[in-house]
Amino acid sequence: MHPTPNNALPGRWQPLAHAVAQACLPQPTSKILQAAGLHIDLSAQYGSPDITAAAQALLDEHNFNARRNALLNGDTANPTELRAAWHTALRAAAPNRDVAHERQRMMDFVHLADAERQWRNVIHIGIGGSDWGVRLAVAAFGYAGTWRTVRFAANIDGHAMAGAMAGLDPRDTLIVVASKSFTTTETLENAQRAIEWLAGAGVADPYRHIVAITACPDKALAWGAHPGHIFKFWEWVGGRFSIWSSVGLTIALAVGIDTLAGLHAGAAALDNHFATAPVPENAPVQMAIAAAINRNILGYGSHNIAPYDHRLGHLVPYLQQLEMESLGKSVDINGNPAGLATGAAVWGMPGTDAQHTFFQWLHQSSDGCPVDFIVCQHADHTWAQHHTRLVANCLAQREALLNGKTPHNAHQDGLAEGLPPQRAQQLAPHRSHAGGRPSNLIVLRELSPYSLGALLALYEHKTFTLGVLWNINPFDQWGVEHGKTLAAGIFRSLSQPGAPTGNHDASTLYWLKALQHTTTTTPQPAPVPTAPVSKTTEPVPETPTPEATEPAA
Amino acid sequence: MHPTPNNALPGRWQPLAHAVAQACLPQPTSKILQAAGLHIDLSAQYGSPDITAAAQALLDEHNFNARRNALLNGDTANPTELRAAWHTALRAAAPNRDVAHERQRMMDFVHLADAERQWRNVIHIGIGGSDWGVRLAVAAFGYAGTWRTVRFAANIDGHAMAGAMAGLDPRDTLIVVASKSFTTTETLENAQRAIEWLAGAGVADPYRHIVAITACPDKALAWGAHPGHIFKFWEWVGGRFSIWSSVGLTIALAVGIDTLAGLHAGAAALDNHFATAPVPENAPVQMAIAAAINRNILGYGSHNIAPYDHRLGHLVPYLQQLEMESLGKSVDINGNPAGLATGAAVWGMPGTDAQHTFFQWLHQSSDGCPVDFIVCQHADHTWAQHHTRLVANCLAQREALLNGKTPHNAHQDGLAEGLPPQRAQQLAPHRSHAGGRPSNLIVLRELSPYSLGALLALYEHKTFTLGVLWNINPFDQWGVEHGKTLAAGIFRSLSQPGAPTGNHDASTLYWLKALQHTTTTTPQPAPVPTAPVSKTTEPVPETPTPEATEPAA
Repeated sequence: MHPTPNNALPGRWQPLAHAVAQACLPQPTSKILQAAGLHIDLSAQYGSPDITAAAQALLDEHNFNARRNALLNGDTANPTELRAAWHTALRAAAPNRDVAHERQRMMDFVHLADAERQWRNVIHIGIGGSDWGVRLAVAAFGYAGTWRTVRFAANIDGHAMAGAMAGLDPRDTLIVVASKSFTTTETLENAQRAIEWLAGAGVADPYRHIVAITACPDKALAWGAHPGHIFKFWEWVGGRFSIWSSVGLTIALAVGIDTLAGLHAGAAALDNHFATAPVPENAPVQMAIAAAINRNILGYGSHNIAPYDHRLGHLVPYLQQLEMESLGKSVDINGNPAGLATGAAVWGMPGTDAQHTFFQWLHQSSDGCPVDFIVCQHADHTWAQHHTRLVANCLAQREALLNGKTPHNAHQDGLAEGLPPQRAQQLAPHRSHAGGRPSNLIVLRELSPYSLGALLALYEHKTFTLGVLWNINPFDQWGVEHGKTLAAGIFRSLSQPGAPTGNHDASTLYWLKALQHTTTTTPQPAPVPTAPVSKTTEPVPETPTPEATEPAA
Repeated sequence: MHPTPNNALPGRWQPLAHAVAQACLPQPTSKILQAAGLHIDLSAQYGSPDITAAAQALLDEHNFNARRNALLNGDTANPTELRAAWHTALRAAAPNRDVAHERQRMMDFVHLADAERQWRNVIHIGIGGSDWGVRLAVAAFGYAGTWRTVRFAANIDGHAMAGAMAGLDPRDTLIVVASKSFTTTETLENAQRAIEWLAGAGVADPYRHIVAITACPDKALAWGAHPGHIFKFWEWVGGRFSIWSSVGLTIALAVGIDTLAGLHAGAAALDNHFATAPVPENAPVQMAIAAAINRNILGYGSHNIAPYDHRLGHLVPYLQQLEMESLGKSVDINGNPAGLATGAAVWGMPGTDAQHTFFQWLHQSSDGCPVDFIVCQHADHTWAQHHTRLVANCLAQREALLNGKTPHNAHQDGLAEGLPPQRAQQLAPHRSHAGGRPSNLIVLRELSPYSLGALLALYEHKTFTLGVLWNINPFDQWGVEHGKTLAAGIFRSLSQPGAPTGNHDASTLYWLKALQHTTTTTPQPAPVPTAPVSKTTEPVPETPTPEATEPAA
């Protein structure tokens, strides 16, 4: 398959477009890179010496080397927020004294808790970057249960916190409150519910059950946290990189403190690869180049993550945040229009579940999208047949997306299956696949903290490199602020009696009126079915809400 | 914002494109439809009398009325598989005798189990359509825990089944095996592990602990299931509509048998709305028209689902399967090229989690995409402030996407915050939002089985109507077969010693060799950390796999 060059691209991208138009998919020989024990197979992406040269020219034009150095040295890699993005410092083998000190404090806390068999339950309260990394690691290594019961509450929706606390004994529950700014509404509200819950159970000092993790320890202190229970991280750690910070405390409590050391070691090894490997062998850089080709030359609008590993379900939201918050920008670092398509929509699900959910779309939809297949060579169970089937499905799906199936072959297959000739012919177009859909295959030796750490750092540096290629700032997220401001005003309108204030469209105004009374009254809690009750009567269907009818135009 | 008409569209779509080009976003007056107690607000979509007329013409051209009748009457709505798609019959208030009989058998089973306080644990084994609907309903109504411990195993990955069984007492565990064909590899393999687990625990007749749910009861019987423990559904129920079938057994065991009656009643009410409401007031039809405009006229490649409800997390994969398996097609019902873009990529996450994960991308990326906001008027908890904040965030995000923020306003805001003039100016482009991004707002009175049933049926009929507009078959999924066939061959290659067979690309051949030995040997299970163990030694980093180096070209 030869793509058509995209003439709307900026001039400096035309050599890459031209090189891609001359290249073939799949590549004639396989292209498998190694980084920190991972194998990254880019054979099913467009690649050629001309592509490498054109991509190198784009990297040079945007000062890739200097920007990579700035990143890794803790210089101002985030120019719009005037600060570093120095998450790599948190996982360095020999971290600076400040980082090492905080890490040791955290380890001491966990050692003591483990030695005393304390905190049978942990509720981790945090959202976004203070949530996904912890969930990911706990699911990856605690998929078969953990000694401590670990729950998560992120959403402001009260059902989240209600569900997190349900059935736990407050007297043996530790509440971890993670918020970089220690002003996150969701987190502080949920933490307040936890304190009420502890106090309501007769816990004399609820704050003894609280650990605060934040870049603003003064705020946590003022809020009530005990000084010995505050673990800090730093302004120069972006929220979506929090897993490398003291936010890992919950990981250590849940699946063992060595998990953190393993994550750090794997990520540090990948950092070293990123810093030193030449561009043609640099795995995150090559993944970024492939992603840019898929996005800007081939025009794919989204990107699918397919971990063939049940334990990696939370990798998808983790990478959604990493890639989309970093690359969902329309202006370059100087504030000028980016001039080309930037970050793709990232979505996915573990295989083989995904095959039974939306792989139909990957194979036969009008658009399709590139896929990252991720699989472990070794499993942590003893059912060889399951793992061989898992690996076989992963390889087969990748091959099917790459090579497709012609209508002719579909027709022949139908005849071979014994279909009547007319039906075989009728079905052939429905059973053919376009093919030519690119993918990465990432093979881990096994799922360990080390390999997971390397995998996360691989995606971090891929994302950073895409930011360089597009000349955007991958470390800010200004777009999340406007909605917060609007929400504060709407919250006031909904909470106060009287006509809504502010300048709103007709529909928003309608809902401000319709929902004002209903959401601020306290409804009776609906019965949560916790014991089996069987009745044979049909429920009475609800009537539509009377007050919410179409307003006069 | 006025979009540019898409000239590549087929001629019959040009009137719609022209009408959209004349329309405004947001609409000058609000457009809120009601269906089965749901309120569906389409004000933030393109709409006008001309759009309605042009869409009506497209529906007429593709025989919408006749095809809707065929669907609802159980005629051959699925022409490539020569069968009906009659899921609506399963939820009818007065179902036919066969359906009513099977429903009663299932209710009797649950009544007895509840009366005898039997089956303290349930493991539900199924994948895709036999999985997501059950997970969705159990999470929606059992978010705060259920009397029975309910686990799910879908993936062929052995870690899924290992995790599902871990810690449960087999002697009090019911295994529900759901597979329409009763040939699904994942499900039968996982079920086999369950039987071994039961037998290993000394259960005399493991099949007494098994319930089989299938459209092929003969196969379940031959496999070993007891006749009284087989619940059937029918060939004319597509896999992705299984929630309406006996697959609901696990829902009844987990969150109460009345839940099923409520789901059915809500869906049936929406079916009635779809069958009878005139097109301008028909909510699923209007949602389909808006989706087609977003896809085909405005060019959006993906579609975001944002339930502002913690309990609806599984709605996203449920709708991914429904929409993408149904609409991920490139040929029309006659086997000719569809000639336009079909189903969008569907993805999402509950808000407010999503705001801290990828809403940056929705606001400021180059592409963006339409969003379905879904929220309940009433919560099932007593923390009014949480619910008001949740609703406020939902309305605010929708408003921000719709109206955006100009660079001028961003500049003024910066000055008002006290930023130095130069910095306010520098940041303005980074803090501005394009706006003009369309959305739906769906308001449920509260989350009940009735409202959830209506919501699912709303999306089903929206998906069907899109199939009509694009003239594709939304009820087949031929694209999933090719990968299965390839996987069977690759599985044989990986399992047998000797050179891999079959015609593969270089990279696939490489992995067939590299992974042949490693995945078929039985590795020692890695220790799962179930008790807190603290060590201070750093783990030894893994060495890269020696055999997996770059093969000679």
